[in-house]
Amino acid sequence: MANDEVILLDSWPSMFGMRLRIALAEKEIKYEYKEEDLWNKSPLLLQMNPIHKKIPVLIHNGKPICESLIGVEYIEEVWKDKAPLLPSDPYERAQARFWGDYIDKKLYDTSRKIYTTTGDEQEAGKKDFIEILRVLEGVLGEKPYYGGDNFGFGDIALIGFYCRFHAYEIYGNFSIEAEFPKLVAWGKRCMQRDSVAKSLPDQHKVLEFVKTLRHKFGIE
Amino acid sequence: MANDEVILLDSWPSMFGMRLRIALAEKEIKYEYKEEDLWNKSPLLLQMNPIHKKIPVLIHNGKPICESLIGVEYIEEVWKDKAPLLPSDPYERAQARFWGDYIDKKLYDTSRKIYTTTGDEQEAGKKDFIEILRVLEGVLGEKPYYGGDNFGFGDIALIGFYCRFHAYEIYGNFSIEAEFPKLVAWGKRCMQRDSVAKSLPDQHKVLEFVKTLRHKFGIE
Repeated sequence: MANDEVILLDSWPSMFGMRLRIALAEKEIKYEYKEEDLWNKSPLLLQMNPIHKKIPVLIHNGKPICESLIGVEYIEEVWKDKAPLLPSDPYERAQARFWGDYIDKKLYDTSRKIYTTTGDEQEAGKKDFIEILRVLEGVLGEKPYYGGDNFGFGDIALIGFYCRFHAYEIYGNFSIEAEFPKLVAWGKRCMQRDSVAKSLPDQHKVLEFVKTLRHKFGIE
Repeated sequence: MANDEVILLDSWPSMFGMRLRIALAEKEIKYEYKEEDLWNKSPLLLQMNPIHKKIPVLIHNGKPICESLIGVEYIEEVWKDKAPLLPSDPYERAQARFWGDYIDKKLYDTSRKIYTTTGDEQEAGKKDFIEILRVLEGVLGEKPYYGGDNFGFGDIALIGFYCRFHAYEIYGNFSIEAEFPKLVAWGKRCMQRDSVAKSLPDQHKVLEFVKTLRHKFGIE
């Protein structure tokens, strides 16, 4: 679609923002990236997402689309001729949505506990996190991608967490690769795609960010 | 689609199950309804939804679809020729999904606090609940349905809560109709549809159910 104005309100360490960056890159859509300061949100963000006041927000010709997986579906539907992100079969689509929803409901809050809490709460968070990764490794099985042979919605939903693996390992004191080799191999496979490699920050930069979060929470 | 086997694992007071009942009724799909005892879940439910172990589960030709809004989208995609439940415009679809997601993230947990907690926790729940209804009444505005002129996804996501309004009023000690007349008028409008009327239980039966919940939680 020519003459489209596409803007992404985002924050570089956001796993949710990464989903939209990847979807836009897969579809080769040009857009303006606007970095938000989450401790001093812009009037544009508050205007575009008055309900949740959160990034990422995709703005297409002046109209906002909030919530990252809804944004990925929107990108898929508007720019449908290139690089399909969802399978065409309704059952497979439902499965892709189910795993995206599972990641949103379970993984983010649990994973944060590893570096924003201490003691028993951290241990409980780590245990739950490992159980979630076990489920996600089981679902992947021997497939190269979550949807099967092709990179798509399930991969986009999860891959942003991959660049925090290093931080989880440091603060959780365990090896994700040792416990979940297929999951780590999948992450490396996704990183070979340009759309992913250019959308995810370096794991060490993310670790520095997580350190600043821990300072804010008074843990370090 | 002829010769389809459609089964719904459900529990009659579930607002989430009601969504699938309504979608199936709108599409005039014949199905077998199986009532689950949530305090003694069936082997079939545990087999069909091993991740969340929750109802509702739609089973289509032996394959399970879990999470109610994902089920509604699945029904829409498989039986697409009759009674469209989502708008065709991608932006309007994203908006419908946004409000469905908002209801799932905010309304259920908040609304339950009115009858499963007491004291300050109940007061805080009631305050949040009223704020959410204010947002939802604002979004509806002067439109007959959430999607505009036609009954659809946003209505299906919300209407199940309507049959608990009486219980919220009794235990929250306030009048929803006095504060949110458009929302109550919308609920009555939806109830004029066969698909909704036959899928929602009577408000007084729901109140009796809520009383048994309160006994279980030791509040009454």
